[in-house]
Amino acid sequence: MAEDGAEDTAAPNAFALAQRQGDEAIRTTLLDAASRLLAAEGPQALALRRIAVEVGCSTTVLYRMFGGKSGLTEALYIEGFRRFRERLAAVPPDPDPRVRLHALGLAYRDNALAERNYYGLMFGEPVPGFRPGEKALLTALSAYAILEDAVAACAAAGLLIDADPRHVAVSFWASVHGFVSLELNGHLPDADAILDTLMNGISSGFFATPRK
Amino acid sequence: MAEDGAEDTAAPNAFALAQRQGDEAIRTTLLDAASRLLAAEGPQALALRRIAVEVGCSTTVLYRMFGGKSGLTEALYIEGFRRFRERLAAVPPDPDPRVRLHALGLAYRDNALAERNYYGLMFGEPVPGFRPGEKALLTALSAYAILEDAVAACAAAGLLIDADPRHVAVSFWASVHGFVSLELNGHLPDADAILDTLMNGISSGFFATPRK
Repeated sequence: MAEDGAEDTAAPNAFALAQRQGDEAIRTTLLDAASRLLAAEGPQALALRRIAVEVGCSTTVLYRMFGGKSGLTEALYIEGFRRFRERLAAVPPDPDPRVRLHALGLAYRDNALAERNYYGLMFGEPVPGFRPGEKALLTALSAYAILEDAVAACAAAGLLIDADPRHVAVSFWASVHGFVSLELNGHLPDADAILDTLMNGISSGFFATPRK
Repeated sequence: MAEDGAEDTAAPNAFALAQRQGDEAIRTTLLDAASRLLAAEGPQALALRRIAVEVGCSTTVLYRMFGGKSGLTEALYIEGFRRFRERLAAVPPDPDPRVRLHALGLAYRDNALAERNYYGLMFGEPVPGFRPGEKALLTALSAYAILEDAVAACAAAGLLIDADPRHVAVSFWASVHGFVSLELNGHLPDADAILDTLMNGISSGFFATPRK
């Protein structure tokens, strides 16, 4: 288009690529860029102008889509938990509810590794003072409920030790959360073997051998 | 001193109070202020000028003591692990090494709650790009070694399940770390009961009943 053809040969930016695929792609592109900046540089990078420069759009697009910085933070939080919930929901049922719980632990870790830029936002407090709104909290709870239901299924099958299933669910979450936090921060060089030990220990600590 | 007496009636700032007690108190005052700002506002608050204003000293004091921002970050890291190690080292021995390990888990949590401003720095990555130096890493390892030795003592007493003691030590750490991370971020309303469930589950999962 430009007379010297410079614009035609320039690589299209992330925004131009997303535009070709529509609003949902633009939204995902903006959220992924924002979560990447947040994870790499901390909360001061979560400025609409900064993100606009990063993906190559105008700040107007960001204001129209998210309303402002706190709307963007809320959207990030929801997106993180939406992906997390999808990953857990994809774990198939199993005749032995302990097998399903074990698979949920692995899916939890897979999600954390695949969506590491969202993980700190979901379970840490990376944006000082930000409190998620109702929709974000409901999304988070609906993801967590999958873990809680899986522990309740173990209890219903008579496989749980003498403990409150809700406390066991939180303990399970805390253990896997601790593992992936340390792994994401580069503290676990032998991560696969450790996860194996951890899951086996939890499994034999919280759950009984089924009665034949 | 001032003719109108205004300076005499003004409350002394943190720096003036620390000066009366000497260099070690100044150092602690500066590190505590820096860790508080880091936890409350993120890494952009970790600017020497900002900390100087906060405690009421000149930036010269900070430059003299820490050399600059990366020296300050390193000092924060060392201070956090030094306090952590002290807390773990204060746990008394016990004829049953599992009892001692359990007490170390509680001490780990006590330290995290008492030193919450240091905790994220020690096990997260709150200052993007910062890598602790050799002295900081040695301090961290010497603290962690207390946990590892406690698990090794359980293994030596024939109390460990069939697993690599080092992997069990990391699993123990990951579980307690996950618990305190979630507690510090306000995710665990019923924290005491959950810690109890978690520690009992780990204990019966990783350790056998002693042979009589």
